[in-house]
Amino acid sequence: MAPVPTPFDNQDRLDEARLKAAFEIWVRGPLAGFVILGSNGEAALMDDEESARAIGIARECVPRGRTLLAGTARESTQATITATKRAAALGVDGVLVRTPGFFKSQMTNDVFVRHYTAVADASPVPVLLYNFTAVTGVNLQPAAVARLATHPNIVGMKESGGDVAQIADLVSMTPDDFIVLAGAAATLYPMMCVGAVGGILALANVLPGPCVRLFELTKAGRHEEAIALQRELVPVARLLGSMHGVPGLKAALNLLGYDVGVPRPPLLPLPESIVPALRDALAHFEEIPA
Amino acid sequence: MAPVPTPFDNQDRLDEARLKAAFEIWVRGPLAGFVILGSNGEAALMDDEESARAIGIARECVPRGRTLLAGTARESTQATITATKRAAALGVDGVLVRTPGFFKSQMTNDVFVRHYTAVADASPVPVLLYNFTAVTGVNLQPAAVARLATHPNIVGMKESGGDVAQIADLVSMTPDDFIVLAGAAATLYPMMCVGAVGGILALANVLPGPCVRLFELTKAGRHEEAIALQRELVPVARLLGSMHGVPGLKAALNLLGYDVGVPRPPLLPLPESIVPALRDALAHFEEIPA
Amino acid sequence: MAPVPTPFDNQDRLDEARLKAAFEIWVRGPLAGFVILGSNGEAALMDDEESARAIGIARECVPRGRTLLAGTARESTQATITATKRAAALGVDGVLVRTPGFFKSQMTNDVFVRHYTAVADASPVPVLLYNFTAVTGVNLQPAAVARLATHPNIVGMKESGGDVAQIADLVSMTPDDFIVLAGAAATLYPMMCVGAVGGILALANVLPGPCVRLFELTKAGRHEEAIALQRELVPVARLLGSMHGVPGLKAALNLLGYDVGVPRPPLLPLPESIVPALRDALAHFEEIPA
Amino acid sequence: MAPVPTPFDNQDRLDEARLKAAFEIWVRGPLAGFVILGSNGEAALMDDEESARAIGIARECVPRGRTLLAGTARESTQATITATKRAAALGVDGVLVRTPGFFKSQMTNDVFVRHYTAVADASPVPVLLYNFTAVTGVNLQPAAVARLATHPNIVGMKESGGDVAQIADLVSMTPDDFIVLAGAAATLYPMMCVGAVGGILALANVLPGPCVRLFELTKAGRHEEAIALQRELVPVARLLGSMHGVPGLKAALNLLGYDVGVPRPPLLPLPESIVPALRDALAHFEEIPA
Repeated sequence: MAPVPTPFDNQDRLDEARLKAAFEIWVRGPLAGFVILGSNGEAALMDDEESARAIGIARECVPRGRTLLAGTARESTQATITATKRAAALGVDGVLVRTPGFFKSQMTNDVFVRHYTAVADASPVPVLLYNFTAVTGVNLQPAAVARLATHPNIVGMKESGGDVAQIADLVSMTPDDFIVLAGAAATLYPMMCVGAVGGILALANVLPGPCVRLFELTKAGRHEEAIALQRELVPVARLLGSMHGVPGLKAALNLLGYDVGVPRPPLLPLPESIVPALRDALAHFEEIPA
Repeated sequence: MAPVPTPFDNQDRLDEARLKAAFEIWVRGPLAGFVILGSNGEAALMDDEESARAIGIARECVPRGRTLLAGTARESTQATITATKRAAALGVDGVLVRTPGFFKSQMTNDVFVRHYTAVADASPVPVLLYNFTAVTGVNLQPAAVARLATHPNIVGMKESGGDVAQIADLVSMTPDDFIVLAGAAATLYPMMCVGAVGGILALANVLPGPCVRLFELTKAGRHEEAIALQRELVPVARLLGSMHGVPGLKAALNLLGYDVGVPRPPLLPLPESIVPALRDALAHFEEIPA
Repeated sequence: MAPVPTPFDNQDRLDEARLKAAFEIWVRGPLAGFVILGSNGEAALMDDEESARAIGIARECVPRGRTLLAGTARESTQATITATKRAAALGVDGVLVRTPGFFKSQMTNDVFVRHYTAVADASPVPVLLYNFTAVTGVNLQPAAVARLATHPNIVGMKESGGDVAQIADLVSMTPDDFIVLAGAAATLYPMMCVGAVGGILALANVLPGPCVRLFELTKAGRHEEAIALQRELVPVARLLGSMHGVPGLKAALNLLGYDVGVPRPPLLPLPESIVPALRDALAHFEEIPA
Repeated sequence: MAPVPTPFDNQDRLDEARLKAAFEIWVRGPLAGFVILGSNGEAALMDDEESARAIGIARECVPRGRTLLAGTARESTQATITATKRAAALGVDGVLVRTPGFFKSQMTNDVFVRHYTAVADASPVPVLLYNFTAVTGVNLQPAAVARLATHPNIVGMKESGGDVAQIADLVSMTPDDFIVLAGAAATLYPMMCVGAVGGILALANVLPGPCVRLFELTKAGRHEEAIALQRELVPVARLLGSMHGVPGLKAALNLLGYDVGVPRPPLLPLPESIVPALRDALAHFEEIPA
């Protein structure tokens, strides 16, 4: 699945037409699903009204056979529930709920369990937990996930961290049907080796074909081919991920013929000086969207 | 100054009556000013409508001779500007704007300078920068502050960090009339020693008298008395700060006869098992509000 | 391979007899090799004379068909070379050289390349790099390893970190015959999935059979069985690793009939209160040494 | 006090003549004392025999009216005791003992208390604790120091950290006659404000006059002048400290007419490209050694 970016126009407003146009390309590709309003969707920079419009467009564009998730995390439990219900009413198949993290020293396992239980109790659609320590500064530990995995409306988790020991704990402490998803191309293959069943990858916006190929090779146990492909993908993934983030992702899509504009301030566009390196990295894949 | 907490009622709604009642006690005390919607005000857990009401009440309660600041930080520049204009329209004397921090690896000095310049350009009232690395995970470095300190509408900064080397840089790289404020009781005295002119302290909600005394002693150069008082205050300050945060602050105020209720979920109330220690720490000061 | 602990007697002296007795049990097991004077060997707490005696005993006990490595890292390049030559003269098959790390901010890629090149130039036996960021506070990055991997006397690396993205980079940036070894039971399986060829595991001292089984299953591509076994091993591995370290490792061995005594001060023995949990975790495996 | 660097010759051997020559300049200056074999003395890169010779030279050069301390920390308790006794036999006035830190997760308050108590019991000379978290990765907390401060042979502590809240705790939890020393020029003034009585500063090797002046101004309560001087010193101090460490310190001394050579590998000399900035920073002080 791809966590899609959100285009803004040159007055820094949500650009619905560009979002629709981008979805038209994405849905022609092989991805199993999409996440609207994820971290890469700049959801943290958008208000509730814009968020509702973005979900509406996504629902309109993504055919029913594909999964559509929406990011609905807020810092307060009640605002998370409100956003979750709104997304469900707009027709998403499930919600992806990043941990709160503002009050770091208070974010104990008990706090997380109470928060997610309240959200899952209130949500009309299935809930996926989402741990993204690099951004939130807090860690949703396997011990808390194990407690939450027994809730009938909590079906899985996206883990964006890359600590293999924690991932091994996570898989070993949750039921077999609890869905664990990788959060980065660099971790998809090793996480699937230890029990993850897929991933939500920024890179899947840009190179959906190779990402799906990596998934299929790994699933089929063709480890050598999977490793070889992962080796090719990691350098590009890093340019869009830890190195340049949303500015890198939007620049890459623009190079490939999508028209997703620039990030919302305070984010700055990718510096011009980086663009050639990005173009070279992408050229390797000759990914030519229609 | 005190960053006041926000009371919620038992349906988890903003409780205006309790906020007014608490202000009635605070304004009888010796504090120079108040911050509404700071980190301790659980602003991260409140929506725009609630925020506006809280500012309105604060403006009504705080007499004109005292400073009233509002926290107006959002992750996006445009939302920060909107919140800042709204607060200004509601009559605050200035705004305290914490750094954005969601997209950590993109938060360069240039991003901060562009963000704060846009906010200060648009703000009808003076702007104070606010660096709170423990919460945001990003650091507003003295080099960026030095550039921003030349803006006519950026008058100062709250620094909640405790790195004395960085604070020394900060003071030495900004003009003499740039206001530097400490963010914790434990750092007020040493930061004033190196050039800060005051503080915005959670402890000032609870023990305004001793906090003002510490400020006055330090300002008067009565260092030995200041050190002795700081020694007494630090243990209480830690209970409300790094150890128990907002739950600790609200519990302490409730023990002292304020009626500020419990934190908003996902925050949990202070565990009952901690209350006796808090009561003992406060008893030492015999602070009895009318 | 197992990084063997070093027994001390009740006067805090190297206990040669106990070390020999322990080796007699280990060499009857299925391990491919041993590391004397690794981190788990408390090498950091031993002097050069003790180190030489420990290596001598290991060489005497480990038959030629098995690999014997010695840890020879020191903070200075010249002391590392001296220790490496001494170990080689005592007959080890190779040396495992942890990065220096005292002067953290000076430990650039260039420093590491110069250091390891000097050591490898001078070493009569093959050199393995060793990155253990949790202990050293510095990170030997894949970019530096890639440069060092071209040295004819640098044959591989032990990576004790668990960042899957870095490990993927490491494997993709080094030649196919560059040996990458995992540093913990929790990371053996996923690291082998991405190209590691084995591991040096504290747990292999305690449960050599299951560790070798995990290695064999993974190597044979029997992923489901490997995952199931890894799930069983991780809880024990954590007790000996991140949670209780050398005190946990020695306590576990003592429970299993080895006689390796207590750690050297300042390390304290495992608290008695933890021993039952350790016994329970081990009982699961019914590992009964002769 | 200055933590003096150790000169090496061009065969990477301890250079006794250069060390004596440097001491001849230092002792003509106004410093209250010297530390041989501190972190800046590259003690971590030296063996016991070299260490003994360096202490011997220092004792020969430093007149009895000045304090001479030696760094004697090792990772093991027994090696620390041996080094401490050796230094005492060579005539030092006291020892400065950095915390062990290799086995980070085992370094509890109890471990530190047992370690330092054993060292202080065995030491013929007074012991100063030494917390340097940036290098060791462990933190000697005020609660442990408070317990150790009651030992008759533990007379004080060097704290190289800059967390003002911890420093405030440290001063408030130890007796009035427990000596607290700052570890960096950037923290000397604020730490003295909260109760420290002096400092051991790398900068004092290079600019002893201004450092002593800063100390005297602060002690005399002439805060404005102290702040002004600190502002001038901080940029130089950072070049020798967090930015360039031992390579920066040795380069600065060489520029000023000392002859202390280059650091011991793996440390590299200061890059030539940095030297002009260092020269400019020093020129400001026109420190001309005889």
